[in-house]
Amino acid sequence: MLDQIKIVLSHTTHPGNIGATARAMKVMGLSQLALVNPAKYPSAEATERASKAADILSNAVIYEDIHSAIADCRLIVGASVRTRNLPSRLVTPRELVTVIQNNLENTPIAILFGTENSGLTNDELHLCHYQVYIPTNPDYSSLNLASAVQLISYEMRLAFSKMQQLPEQRIIANEQRISRSQLDGLLEHFEKVMGDTGYLNADHRKQIDNRMSRLLSKAEITESENRVLRGFLTSIENSLKK
Amino acid sequence: MLDQIKIVLSHTTHPGNIGATARAMKVMGLSQLALVNPAKYPSAEATERASKAADILSNAVIYEDIHSAIADCRLIVGASVRTRNLPSRLVTPRELVTVIQNNLENTPIAILFGTENSGLTNDELHLCHYQVYIPTNPDYSSLNLASAVQLISYEMRLAFSKMQQLPEQRIIANEQRISRSQLDGLLEHFEKVMGDTGYLNADHRKQIDNRMSRLLSKAEITESENRVLRGFLTSIENSLKK
Repeated sequence: MLDQIKIVLSHTTHPGNIGATARAMKVMGLSQLALVNPAKYPSAEATERASKAADILSNAVIYEDIHSAIADCRLIVGASVRTRNLPSRLVTPRELVTVIQNNLENTPIAILFGTENSGLTNDELHLCHYQVYIPTNPDYSSLNLASAVQLISYEMRLAFSKMQQLPEQRIIANEQRISRSQLDGLLEHFEKVMGDTGYLNADHRKQIDNRMSRLLSKAEITESENRVLRGFLTSIENSLKK
Repeated sequence: MLDQIKIVLSHTTHPGNIGATARAMKVMGLSQLALVNPAKYPSAEATERASKAADILSNAVIYEDIHSAIADCRLIVGASVRTRNLPSRLVTPRELVTVIQNNLENTPIAILFGTENSGLTNDELHLCHYQVYIPTNPDYSSLNLASAVQLISYEMRLAFSKMQQLPEQRIIANEQRISRSQLDGLLEHFEKVMGDTGYLNADHRKQIDNRMSRLLSKAEITESENRVLRGFLTSIENSLKK
């Protein structure tokens, strides 16, 4: 199970934090690291701070944008202390354990961490099913990036290091959620049809896009639901053509 | 309660780890830092890694030996992944919460962290009532020093950030344990009398000392028990003089 959790660092500024993250992960038995547009990488500082977790660094996959990093993921969680205008469902790291236990069929799981100074952008957070919030001192909540990864990896290890494979029955009973790239396809389809119908205009396009993205994430759409929605959208397109 | 927990770093090699520890503590609301013989301190690297936790660094107290650092402490816990020949009672960070909840009158509490490469020495661990062990990957258990402080501080914050003062009744009902310096005095008295009686000799002095230190730590000796033991030892001395 720990191998199904992908730590995604977006636009990391300091390479030392990438190395420290690799070490934090390995100590807790996590292995999948994705880097989205790191400012300076590879770097000697990253390698030094990784200590004996060099394998995590050398297996890390680098992506140009967050969408490709999470394209195959079925549960997406964003780590952030800030709450937003359009908040995701908020959980603590310990509550996240329960969320994941209820989503064992929805792997791989991505946990996103934003850039050091400002955290995840609103756009990045809109891709998430849940927002994980680490309880901190209200007078000083600036947790180091690798420390945040450390705390969440620790909770994951405590919960999942001894867990066995998901019983086969459970996989059959709980239909799998669609992947992020399928969801992106569905979103594009919605936007296309909303454009066709004249609902979307330049003024509020971004706002509507964000709300749709959040809504469809929260809906935890399955394969069969996706087929229904896609069929519906296509039927609208066909009707408009006539 | 979080202000009653003293983080004690013994013989830290890298000043960056001292700074990162200060930040890790402050983010979780801990404030008391003690440094025993740090290799390089103060240091610009410590200050930089502390980020906005400079107050923790400037309030940190530096000691020449571990005994002075914990002299006023009534519950002493050592953080170590290694188990020893003469093991203390082992607890996880989450179990440590329960231990502290049962020891709210035994403040201040010290949590000791050894040098980066080899951790706490056996002598340091013998001073501890409990050993706290962070569950890690058996293939790679080398947790960074500040990360270990971060994880333990996190568990403390989750448990104690909202806790109120200890009810007065409880303080009356549970007699306070003696402080470490009182315990050291008691130990010295035992050793003195053991020397007087001829029980201690140069060959096994160290071994006996360690066992006595561990035994008296585990016994969680109270003020009144201390008076009884001291009285007994004095009575032996007086008898030998006659």
